[in-house]
Amino acid sequence: MIKVIDFIQTHRDRYVTELKEFLAIPSISALPAHNADVTRCAEWTAAEMTRIGLQNVRLEQTAGHPIVYGEWLGASAADGSSGDAPTILFYGHYDVQPVDPVNLWESPPFEATVRDGEIYARGSADDKGQVFMHFKAIEAHLKQHGKLPVNIKVIIEGEEEVGSKNLDAFVQNNHDLLKCDVVVISDSAMFDRGVPSICYSLRGLVYFQIDLRGTKSDLHSGIFGGAVANPNFVLAQMLAQMKDKSGRIKITGFYDDVRELSQEERDAWKKLPFNEKQYRKDLGAPKLQGETGYTTLERVWGRPTFEVNGIQGGFTGDGAKTVIPAVAMAKVSMRLVPNQDPDKIAELFEAYVKQIAPPTVEVTVTRMHGGKPWLTEYDNPFVQAAGRAIEQGFGKAPVFCREGGSIPVVQTFQDELKVPAVLFGVGLPDENAHAPNEKLDLGNFHNGIVASAILYDEISKVTT
Amino acid sequence: MIKVIDFIQTHRDRYVTELKEFLAIPSISALPAHNADVTRCAEWTAAEMTRIGLQNVRLEQTAGHPIVYGEWLGASAADGSSGDAPTILFYGHYDVQPVDPVNLWESPPFEATVRDGEIYARGSADDKGQVFMHFKAIEAHLKQHGKLPVNIKVIIEGEEEVGSKNLDAFVQNNHDLLKCDVVVISDSAMFDRGVPSICYSLRGLVYFQIDLRGTKSDLHSGIFGGAVANPNFVLAQMLAQMKDKSGRIKITGFYDDVRELSQEERDAWKKLPFNEKQYRKDLGAPKLQGETGYTTLERVWGRPTFEVNGIQGGFTGDGAKTVIPAVAMAKVSMRLVPNQDPDKIAELFEAYVKQIAPPTVEVTVTRMHGGKPWLTEYDNPFVQAAGRAIEQGFGKAPVFCREGGSIPVVQTFQDELKVPAVLFGVGLPDENAHAPNEKLDLGNFHNGIVASAILYDEISKVTT
Repeated sequence: MIKVIDFIQTHRDRYVTELKEFLAIPSISALPAHNADVTRCAEWTAAEMTRIGLQNVRLEQTAGHPIVYGEWLGASAADGSSGDAPTILFYGHYDVQPVDPVNLWESPPFEATVRDGEIYARGSADDKGQVFMHFKAIEAHLKQHGKLPVNIKVIIEGEEEVGSKNLDAFVQNNHDLLKCDVVVISDSAMFDRGVPSICYSLRGLVYFQIDLRGTKSDLHSGIFGGAVANPNFVLAQMLAQMKDKSGRIKITGFYDDVRELSQEERDAWKKLPFNEKQYRKDLGAPKLQGETGYTTLERVWGRPTFEVNGIQGGFTGDGAKTVIPAVAMAKVSMRLVPNQDPDKIAELFEAYVKQIAPPTVEVTVTRMHGGKPWLTEYDNPFVQAAGRAIEQGFGKAPVFCREGGSIPVVQTFQDELKVPAVLFGVGLPDENAHAPNEKLDLGNFHNGIVASAILYDEISKVTT
Repeated sequence: MIKVIDFIQTHRDRYVTELKEFLAIPSISALPAHNADVTRCAEWTAAEMTRIGLQNVRLEQTAGHPIVYGEWLGASAADGSSGDAPTILFYGHYDVQPVDPVNLWESPPFEATVRDGEIYARGSADDKGQVFMHFKAIEAHLKQHGKLPVNIKVIIEGEEEVGSKNLDAFVQNNHDLLKCDVVVISDSAMFDRGVPSICYSLRGLVYFQIDLRGTKSDLHSGIFGGAVANPNFVLAQMLAQMKDKSGRIKITGFYDDVRELSQEERDAWKKLPFNEKQYRKDLGAPKLQGETGYTTLERVWGRPTFEVNGIQGGFTGDGAKTVIPAVAMAKVSMRLVPNQDPDKIAELFEAYVKQIAPPTVEVTVTRMHGGKPWLTEYDNPFVQAAGRAIEQGFGKAPVFCREGGSIPVVQTFQDELKVPAVLFGVGLPDENAHAPNEKLDLGNFHNGIVASAILYDEISKVTT
């Protein structure tokens, strides 16, 4: 490994120069005007994968943007025996978010600029910089030793920012091609600056629209007020019945499959450098609030939620209009935790809505989308291998944490390929991933290359 | 009176021809593009008032559109004594609502068209047709007898459809000019076709906007969900606390000044030809709903309400966005009944909001506008005189009813001039006052002219 790490340390400047090339391609998947750029970026990615020594590199066409595939499968077992070496499937994406509002960028989003040790560009953290970190780690192994300590398969998609809409089918249809022992994804952030972390669980999601109709048209609130149910008010009544005063969700059966946090997890999280006062201040909230009996980190990482994402009904312009609206609408979603199943929760929610809906309105519930929660036990050998790699790359043992958001593809890989996934991210909470002035800390980028190189070595030693 | 009624019966065709002229002027006060038309309509109204024999006719300038004033003050007491004859102040308006969506009109809104005994045009019912009915009644008296049985002062304003914003000041500043014994207003509808009515009470109104702020900006519901209050949800919780399960408003002290319905009123209303099943069907409501212990008519005429007129927060476009909104907003209003005071209720509401608002959000309550409820006892001699006039004009005794809406100017007149007001309306519930195809039944129009002519006579006999 020393030769590999030496190689990485001596090529730091080149890595930044090359990364700038990658970041210069405006591969915005959400905007059809950038379709040619997305294709060009797929081709650049494929060329780079070939340059670093991957084999059988090709564009896998989909109904949308292509998936870039490459592999290196020449590893021998770590102990030199004839046993098979483990195979990693590395997943990332080459597409990026739109850049609006572009006038808030301090330097052009597609002209990567280094300031104070951070590289500013759209895609720097999400996800080109983190993909490139693995490219350079693979390159270092192959250039120094002509081989990797593990087999590796790489898929880099071009539609992550538009919901990975063709990835599920690709994974489902390519079990053999993607067969592996572990999936590695670097598309997330560390707990905090100077606090490297391994994320071992994500929340899932179910999202609904609720539509209420009270009458066939809007009514004058003077002439009819008092005689009919007001859909805005009924909606408020129904939503208010979703949680009790302790913040607990009242949907019957909602908590049945919730995996309780272990005492070990709760103890570990209490030791994290989390400043609740500063957190509240940064959000500008008068007071934090959540489920009774849980800390803030437990609430956002390990407990399910019910949120009203949108609500609308009646007159909402300037001034006053004395109307009883005919219809009212809410968009609501629930974050789910292991082992809640989105389909089962959707049914429980729909049944509960039916139960509490009064006979004075017509209620329609529409399922919008959903995603399963994900968890790899943090004592899983691959997760622990990732932890050792981070410790060596960053000179500091990582914390093991969860995240409150949802990355449905992680669970898709686990479900389809029946292997654990490891989130190996080196972004930062203030990286502005979907906002102006996205950035990646170059120290984390370089440490991440070293850690990735070590990760392959550590994974090669895992016996499952 | 026989000569007066004969005169009216022989001029029916001329009345319709003249009314069409009045209706041809697009005096839409809400649209600045029609300012010249509004002025032209004021001038037409003044010329007509002079033609029918009113005196001292003039435009009273305001900060907005002018008020047309005219008078005839030569009446002697009904018994021929030297005592003063009563003075009526008649109020109406010459401005009209906009006509959008104009493509839904079956004939042009400013080319009055008679179909099946109804005259279709913007302003036909609201309020030019009903104003014109009094003009023709005054004309008939003056042409036949050279005098009226009462003194009459007429004010026709041009801003009723934009909130009568300059009328209050005009009334306040002209107590002497407007001094009278009774105010007569013809700007309302009968209980039903074939059921002439006298309305003796209206509801008042208070209207608010409630704004909630939870955090300084919108948050990702995955990353932060569970840790902070969701303004949409808090708003739902707060609104749900405004009424209990029986539909009773929970604002502390809200019912303290409510004048309970008399048994006599309740008995009378039960005899009205009101078909609740048809009413529900016409509204397209799955089920009617209101305060426990009251009938539908009692609920809309005689009981206060709490309505959520508008609600808005977070993402309400197509699709799904996993956001916790920073802010949420509701527009709410309460219809008030005698003897609730809008200012007092506003204070009770604000105190209640303060009481139920959780410390997790910043809550701002803004008073939008309000109006006092109005009631003239239905055994008031002027109300009873109006009833007799209607009975003679329509050949049928009127029903005495209330209305659920608010016409703040009615109470303004009562408060400022310290005299009762009488609502003497001949529109119909399906007149489409603020909608396409506004219409006035010509039978009611002609009967209304007769009834108005008789009203002056009946009022002349009232001894107060």
